[in-house]
Amino acid sequence: MPKEEAVELYRCAARSEWLQVRGIACHIGSQILEVEPFLKALDEILSVAEAVRAEGIEVEFLDLGGGFGIRYADEQPLALDKLFSGLAARLAGTSFRLIIEPGRAVVGDAGVLLARVLYVKRHQQKNFIVVDAGMNDLMRPTLYGSYHEILLVTRRPTETLTADVVGPLCETGDFLAQDRALPDVQPGDLLAILTVGAYGYVLASNYNTRPRPAEVLIDGNRAELIRSRERLEDLMAGETL
Amino acid sequence: MPKEEAVELYRCAARSEWLQVRGIACHIGSQILEVEPFLKALDEILSVAEAVRAEGIEVEFLDLGGGFGIRYADEQPLALDKLFSGLAARLAGTSFRLIIEPGRAVVGDAGVLLARVLYVKRHQQKNFIVVDAGMNDLMRPTLYGSYHEILLVTRRPTETLTADVVGPLCETGDFLAQDRALPDVQPGDLLAILTVGAYGYVLASNYNTRPRPAEVLIDGNRAELIRSRERLEDLMAGETL
Repeated sequence: MPKEEAVELYRCAARSEWLQVRGIACHIGSQILEVEPFLKALDEILSVAEAVRAEGIEVEFLDLGGGFGIRYADEQPLALDKLFSGLAARLAGTSFRLIIEPGRAVVGDAGVLLARVLYVKRHQQKNFIVVDAGMNDLMRPTLYGSYHEILLVTRRPTETLTADVVGPLCETGDFLAQDRALPDVQPGDLLAILTVGAYGYVLASNYNTRPRPAEVLIDGNRAELIRSRERLEDLMAGETL
Repeated sequence: MPKEEAVELYRCAARSEWLQVRGIACHIGSQILEVEPFLKALDEILSVAEAVRAEGIEVEFLDLGGGFGIRYADEQPLALDKLFSGLAARLAGTSFRLIIEPGRAVVGDAGVLLARVLYVKRHQQKNFIVVDAGMNDLMRPTLYGSYHEILLVTRRPTETLTADVVGPLCETGDFLAQDRALPDVQPGDLLAILTVGAYGYVLASNYNTRPRPAEVLIDGNRAELIRSRERLEDLMAGETL
């Protein structure tokens, strides 16, 4: 909604017998690492809120949306302290209640995808580490070109191998990392693909008739299965002929 | 596998007590609209097959893979007659059996995604037709920038509206068409998104907690449900705490 149309729309809403004005929401983007855009966004919706209140229409909530950037590689994550003190300073003395939607910032780095190395294809031009997870399990690298750090679960001294980490699907886009310097892994090694707690499992598909993986919750030394591994039968369950 | 390494590998396979050499396979790409690349690919695997046979190793099958291009927009689809007569001419007088994998060419245009218009957002800069199908139902436009023709199911004379056709998901990438000239649709109108029989449902996800759609088989005037609509409960079925 363009800002210029907002006040007129709040007037309409306030006249409606079916609508109740509660707040003003914005969403400025994804994976934002700077504080400034959020402060500017709050200034924008504050000015709309004040214009709406000047019409005698009560506004309680200001919803700043999401987009709080986290660390995938070597980014400086969003400085939350600085963000919240900046937001608080702007809201001091007002009666607005602030809502934020920090999904990725809460769960992003809580998720790890485990994948086992199936084999290593070595060629003069390019190396491939083929693992048992693919783009159907983690779509972000293929869909957005996203970077996810990859670690060898059981560390040991190794040479470095520069390789694409790819899955077993029949598609060029089936990669989890490209031209990545990694330990010189062997078949059977377990890799941890980091920071997949957000936009990970929720974007998974059954492409190539692949059941989706199990999910395990780790709490200190405890591990609990919280979603069972899909079975092939589950994929066909809805089918009738 | 680089072609240069193939003969040596067939020698290894022939010496193995666990492997039996049956054929030679290639896969040259996707959605290819020209005949020439396939004929060239057959020439390549024919030359490998003959080199392998010269080693006294029997090769029965030549697998040309897939990639047979179909019509999504105004492409000239792959000329199958010309392709098959070209392949047959090359194989005449040999004892090789040809295998092809024409998945998309068989089922691609057999699939239609129906979506209902939820509303039309008109702005000076851009128009949006919001429908009840999204990138979780059909990933190809978002993933590959693919073009799918879109028709109004019940035709009527209308003005033209240039708009993005978007879904209800919370993501910039949630579109089915961009800057498309379409009939000036109204909420409630049913749209047919064509040529989704390949890489359609198989790439669908539950992103945004969206159950996947039902699938219906049409045979002349008969319509049969062949996959039931997923329910919200299905999405949570594997979860335990």
